Amino acid sequence: MTAEPSLNGLIVREQEPLNLEMPFSTLGGFTTPNESFYVRCHFPIPEIAVSDWRLKIEGKVEAPFELNYEELLRMESRTVAATLECAGNNRDFLEPKVKGVQWGLGAVGNASWTGVPLSVVLERAGVKSGAIEVILEGADEGEIANPPRPAGKIRFARSLPLAKAMGDVLLAHTMNGEPLPPSHGFPLRAIVPGWYAVASVKWMRSIIVTNRPFAGYYQSIDYTYWERTADDLPTLKPLAEQQIKAEIAQPEKGETISVGATYRVHGAAWSGDAEITKVEVSTDAGASWSLANLGADSVKNSWRLWEYDWRTPTTLGPQTLMARATDSVGRTQPFERDADRGTYMINHILPILVEVR
Amino acid sequence: MTAEPSLNGLIVREQEPLNLEMPFSTLGGFTTPNESFYVRCHFPIPEIAVSDWRLKIEGKVEAPFELNYEELLRMESRTVAATLECAGNNRDFLEPKVKGVQWGLGAVGNASWTGVPLSVVLERAGVKSGAIEVILEGADEGEIANPPRPAGKIRFARSLPLAKAMGDVLLAHTMNGEPLPPSHGFPLRAIVPGWYAVASVKWMRSIIVTNRPFAGYYQSIDYTYWERTADDLPTLKPLAEQQIKAEIAQPEKGETISVGATYRVHGAAWSGDAEITKVEVSTDAGASWSLANLGADSVKNSWRLWEYDWRTPTTLGPQTLMARATDSVGRTQPFERDADRGTYMINHILPILVEVR
Repeated sequence: MTAEPSLNGLIVREQEPLNLEMPFSTLGGFTTPNESFYVRCHFPIPEIAVSDWRLKIEGKVEAPFELNYEELLRMESRTVAATLECAGNNRDFLEPKVKGVQWGLGAVGNASWTGVPLSVVLERAGVKSGAIEVILEGADEGEIANPPRPAGKIRFARSLPLAKAMGDVLLAHTMNGEPLPPSHGFPLRAIVPGWYAVASVKWMRSIIVTNRPFAGYYQSIDYTYWERTADDLPTLKPLAEQQIKAEIAQPEKGETISVGATYRVHGAAWSGDAEITKVEVSTDAGASWSLANLGADSVKNSWRLWEYDWRTPTTLGPQTLMARATDSVGRTQPFERDADRGTYMINHILPILVEVR
Repeated sequence: MTAEPSLNGLIVREQEPLNLEMPFSTLGGFTTPNESFYVRCHFPIPEIAVSDWRLKIEGKVEAPFELNYEELLRMESRTVAATLECAGNNRDFLEPKVKGVQWGLGAVGNASWTGVPLSVVLERAGVKSGAIEVILEGADEGEIANPPRPAGKIRFARSLPLAKAMGDVLLAHTMNGEPLPPSHGFPLRAIVPGWYAVASVKWMRSIIVTNRPFAGYYQSIDYTYWERTADDLPTLKPLAEQQIKAEIAQPEKGETISVGATYRVHGAAWSGDAEITKVEVSTDAGASWSLANLGADSVKNSWRLWEYDWRTPTTLGPQTLMARATDSVGRTQPFERDADRGTYMINHILPILVEVR
């Protein structure tokens, strides 16, 4: 139904660097297959030979060390499910148009990830007192086009507060039971559960413990939003926790719906590390709302599937559908966009316009 | 000699907002007269009636309070000389051209400032433990054009580390013995000695003590540079201390010099809070250097004048002059531009091309 160029069933949002979106109408089950999982790259995909590859653990640690791929695979592993969402997902819904990859609904996916807890690696190195952050650095590199930018090539890097790094972060070598595909960070990527996927650095190269706040390009310029503090002064923050959101997989935008029938509206909803407790659906542009049925799988840091049987109108014409999620700590989605979020964290209620015929 | 539009003898770099440069060839003495002092605005100059105006001291303090203009004038004052330099001074020398006001040599001036130490005001309010920064907020406001930007109008604001705020920072109401002119921040501006002038917030409105790092637009996006830290990763820093620099006032770029004569090359040099101990002049594009004579006035945080009697060549043709400063802690100017400084902190050796006829 989409007119966009596609590659193996994914929508090509950008060729170089490669940015591929899952057509969200193809949402199947709780787990997104590897070949359907959206791909977000900032630079060319690094070609990494496992025989040469090393993961360095350095900075403010007692004993810096390196791990090779075999050593990592031999370490005790954990498997967790986690929904990754690009912080710019749904950007295509913004009016007026903003810069950045024009993601529709499908820069999100849920997979099961297997790897070594970051805390295990950090504990082995021995974090020095005074350390406050852990920088995750990828092997992907390139030049930034627009100022303010560092000179020359930089590598993709993000930092985490030490508490999060010592928490549930995984160094994943396996995605849904298979070695990470190259486009998803082979041989090793971070998985930062509950956070926007920008934090889940791919093609991991180095873990750098630091006693100073890291203000890298993707931490301080790109992937940031404005928070209002004292005296209404906006202050810049790096994106972190996923915001609550429900998305409609079917029907999709522009779909033709049969008059006077039953249509299974369905989709997914997520909210960082909180549980989705309610999804409501409106078929009249927000005037009234009905409860959707929630899927049985309610897994921390993963999306929750939902569905709603819609008795479609007996009259012809356009209809606007909406979905709205509520979570276990009482958060729900706003109707209006918060402009301080710039081109990211888009979680206001999204209208899906269909035609009843 | 300049072709630029001028206003009361200053070069108009921008009309709205008003940005005026002193033709640096007009450098006279140690003190720059108010009417010759460069003007840097980010937004329209606020029209402030002193009867309505208040300075607020708020945030993480024991006893927030306000001061009016009369109260400020009655407080014990201090007078200090300080050189203010725009962090983008000399931007016109950069190749390739970069965005921003195209300052030549004259976005710098030295004045005597009278006012109340910021520390006195902070001590009266009582800074709470845990405070780390002091935000200085101006009354000037407007919208930022390009992302990443906060939504709507913002006011100009910068923060200082608490130690600097409790040090030599002045809340100045008087410039060279006269009330601050409107374009220089009437009724009150900060003077942050030794720092780029962006820190010396004009049209002061509020002093906000905070226990969180302030990442305002002019702190985190604009007026920043990249510093290389662990693993060569660039990390963003707000501009702070002035870098060492010597500038040639005369001759100016493109000037015609008499053959086989004596020409008084002169200028000024400064280096944050360090003393200028040496200025060298080259009249052969850096191949050889001669010592300049330093002016008698060596005042902390102020520029130092210098001069050099040049025996001009006996042959006709182009000549490239340069000046290079050295300070009391051994710093000197580099030949090459550091690209990580973006469009700011331009202190490499600047060539002045003249013609001997």
